[in-house]
Amino acid sequence: MQIEIVTIGNEVLSGRTVDTNFAWLARALERASVQVAWHTTVGDSAERIGEALKRALERAGGVVMMGGLGPTPDDLTRKAVATVLARPLQLDEAVLAHVRERAKRSGRSLPASIESMALLPRGAEAWISPAGSAPGLLIVQGEKPVILLPGVPHELEALATEYVVPYLRQRTGRAVETFTLRTFGAFESQLHERIGARPQRWAGAVLAYLPSYFGVDLRVTVAGPAGSQVAEVAARARAELLELVGSVVYAEGEHTMEEVVGEALLARSWRMATAESCTAGLLAKRVTDVPGSSRYFDRGFVTYSNEAKVELLGVGEADLATHGAVSAPVAEQMARGARHRAGVELGVAITGVAGPEGGSTEKPVGTVFVALSTPEGEAVRRFHFAGSRATIRERSAQIALDLARRRLLGLPLDAQLEEPPGPTAGLAPRPASRAAAKPAARPASPRRRAPGAPDEGGQAGD
Amino acid sequence: MQIEIVTIGNEVLSGRTVDTNFAWLARALERASVQVAWHTTVGDSAERIGEALKRALERAGGVVMMGGLGPTPDDLTRKAVATVLARPLQLDEAVLAHVRERAKRSGRSLPASIESMALLPRGAEAWISPAGSAPGLLIVQGEKPVILLPGVPHELEALATEYVVPYLRQRTGRAVETFTLRTFGAFESQLHERIGARPQRWAGAVLAYLPSYFGVDLRVTVAGPAGSQVAEVAARARAELLELVGSVVYAEGEHTMEEVVGEALLARSWRMATAESCTAGLLAKRVTDVPGSSRYFDRGFVTYSNEAKVELLGVGEADLATHGAVSAPVAEQMARGARHRAGVELGVAITGVAGPEGGSTEKPVGTVFVALSTPEGEAVRRFHFAGSRATIRERSAQIALDLARRRLLGLPLDAQLEEPPGPTAGLAPRPASRAAAKPAARPASPRRRAPGAPDEGGQAGD
Repeated sequence: MQIEIVTIGNEVLSGRTVDTNFAWLARALERASVQVAWHTTVGDSAERIGEALKRALERAGGVVMMGGLGPTPDDLTRKAVATVLARPLQLDEAVLAHVRERAKRSGRSLPASIESMALLPRGAEAWISPAGSAPGLLIVQGEKPVILLPGVPHELEALATEYVVPYLRQRTGRAVETFTLRTFGAFESQLHERIGARPQRWAGAVLAYLPSYFGVDLRVTVAGPAGSQVAEVAARARAELLELVGSVVYAEGEHTMEEVVGEALLARSWRMATAESCTAGLLAKRVTDVPGSSRYFDRGFVTYSNEAKVELLGVGEADLATHGAVSAPVAEQMARGARHRAGVELGVAITGVAGPEGGSTEKPVGTVFVALSTPEGEAVRRFHFAGSRATIRERSAQIALDLARRRLLGLPLDAQLEEPPGPTAGLAPRPASRAAAKPAARPASPRRRAPGAPDEGGQAGD
Repeated sequence: MQIEIVTIGNEVLSGRTVDTNFAWLARALERASVQVAWHTTVGDSAERIGEALKRALERAGGVVMMGGLGPTPDDLTRKAVATVLARPLQLDEAVLAHVRERAKRSGRSLPASIESMALLPRGAEAWISPAGSAPGLLIVQGEKPVILLPGVPHELEALATEYVVPYLRQRTGRAVETFTLRTFGAFESQLHERIGARPQRWAGAVLAYLPSYFGVDLRVTVAGPAGSQVAEVAARARAELLELVGSVVYAEGEHTMEEVVGEALLARSWRMATAESCTAGLLAKRVTDVPGSSRYFDRGFVTYSNEAKVELLGVGEADLATHGAVSAPVAEQMARGARHRAGVELGVAITGVAGPEGGSTEKPVGTVFVALSTPEGEAVRRFHFAGSRATIRERSAQIALDLARRRLLGLPLDAQLEEPPGPTAGLAPRPASRAAAKPAARPASPRRRAPGAPDEGGQAGD
């Protein structure tokens, strides 16, 4: 089934609120084999909401509308839908009871208008929310489902998970297989050149290149009638991609770099500490985004000032004076200091010029040093990133995590596409097959710019 | 002029990429008095792109299409537009020269297909990009501008800033004034009850409530014909809102909490240090998101393990054993330790249970203690936040910053809406009027749940 999602809200249309709800819902529906074919956003206007619904019913097999279900005067969705579908609003006693009960439970004095949330278009089925007052609504209009959801993210997510996805999954009869290989360290154009026209050999498959600061994700979607060979095609596509570009694949699916690093630490029973200057906590924050990270993350040193570098990490004052805070010797001492002072096996350090001020001819804004210290040895790399302060910091944290991952897994430290048929050693091996991980084979010489440091957005055109 | 923005790309439609480009562009256009009235997203299909363009030309006064201008086979925008507008693609020599020059300058071997970017619909004006290969394109179709932009964020932003905004501003003849008051510490429903129907007295004005983890922004947009009194209406609306809810306003416009804290530190010539357990670097990262923050941020201690709390901050082992790491005494000692060991004036500490594991009956997931230590005294507060691990961490960092702001500005530590006509003391005073800042007047007693700790998303319905 191809559906249309309609987002309602001036705050989204004006760009003040980024529509993360849409992205979340589209991904949730994809897992239910429901394809989102159109997405429209309109403001808080009953006329525009009505037009959008009419248009969506013309072209799509179903419609999900998000937002405008609350109790304030700019919440117009129920009214607009009631008008367009000629289904007058009627009071729903079950919803009213739920709204009152939630209000009571909150212990806050809520405006009486909150009870307007119990007015539903005639014939609507109400899905009582596990997370809020506004219910989800289902109206079946001439065989096509029209679903209304509140725009509050956690309410939307709760209703979609509990009701919308199961309901739509049951209505579709199409098979979809999708997988994602996450790469880091190669440009999109390099991946494209290596992979070329190969996807044309995979029946019903589409390969998308998804570049971001975190690398380039390769997402393959295979679609076909229920009962067709979509699973087999997907498996073959995955194997061929790993053969072509496996040396820069760090994870699959929604697995993140910090999760891979955490698993690698657990596999070796190692603990880690961070030492950060320009990223100032971002690396530690990323590592601890993973639930349970206290099993392997001990502490982080955010040494923004030079005094902090000296006092907390034992960086030499002479080195700071001679080489500057943004230098290979200081990065190395930061990583070593973090490891020794925390008494852990892995120290990771970042020091750089995030900008917009502070650059020099020799070390322009975007110059970043990353160092690793382990009982097996130390390493430092210099990078140069283009972009804003935020971009430089995000990229620095990501490349530091990738270096840690490569060191932990015994991979070559510098990412590069290997000649096909290449090994799939870049992918974090499952614990059972760890022996297959390729040991560092080539000399890891420092260089000015690694392929892991795209400075034009990691892509050639668009 | 009301325009429609069309986003093109399977990666956006599938929800894999969040459409931050749209939000950025809508805000940029608003500043040019251009109102975005519709936003449509379609996938990489020439047919869908063509349909979307036709539809947009029917209803809008202008169209901006983003994405699909690159050199790969899934970049179909130029072709689709050429077909729908009956303007065959023609080679543009100036664009070709630019594409070749960029390719040469990049030093990378780029596929020959990159030259397809120089094929433009007949009659299109090319805006050479300051930031990439793909040009922006302007086609005037029956008086309506059709603008095509690449989807790479920094390329889009460069082209929009340099060409699109000035071009559209020149075409519109409407005046728009907009301002935003950023509040923290009151629920959306509380603000709504206080403000009520007041906006109806402001001619041509719309007030939007924009809740997020960072508080509730109040955005007022006043529109009218060029030469009308929009500026005066906006000034009056701003003054009235500050009278009604000023005690919870922390900033205006796009000013962030961390910027306000930084300015308050500079105004007092104070420096700060952080001590974080559950947020593990997020607070330090937020403080240092601000360029130039090295003037007031010295260092951060990410003390994830108990050993780190003892060794780096001097937290008492007995207190850890008696009260647990998530407790008022430990939070206080962390803040004090950070302040003393860094030798600064402000120490801010966060310790809590971010979940999803680690909660108990007494301290469920979401329990967070925030402490401040300054030469003037110390304070600790307990909060409870609902939501995911990421949400709990984001809210913890935000409330810690707000507490620091209140302490630095001499405001009551616990946010609350004051009775109108209230002072506007909640707003960070300009340096020149600092004397107007209200000193802490009422006893700041700890309590289980401050209004600054919304645990239902800060809003009642939607």
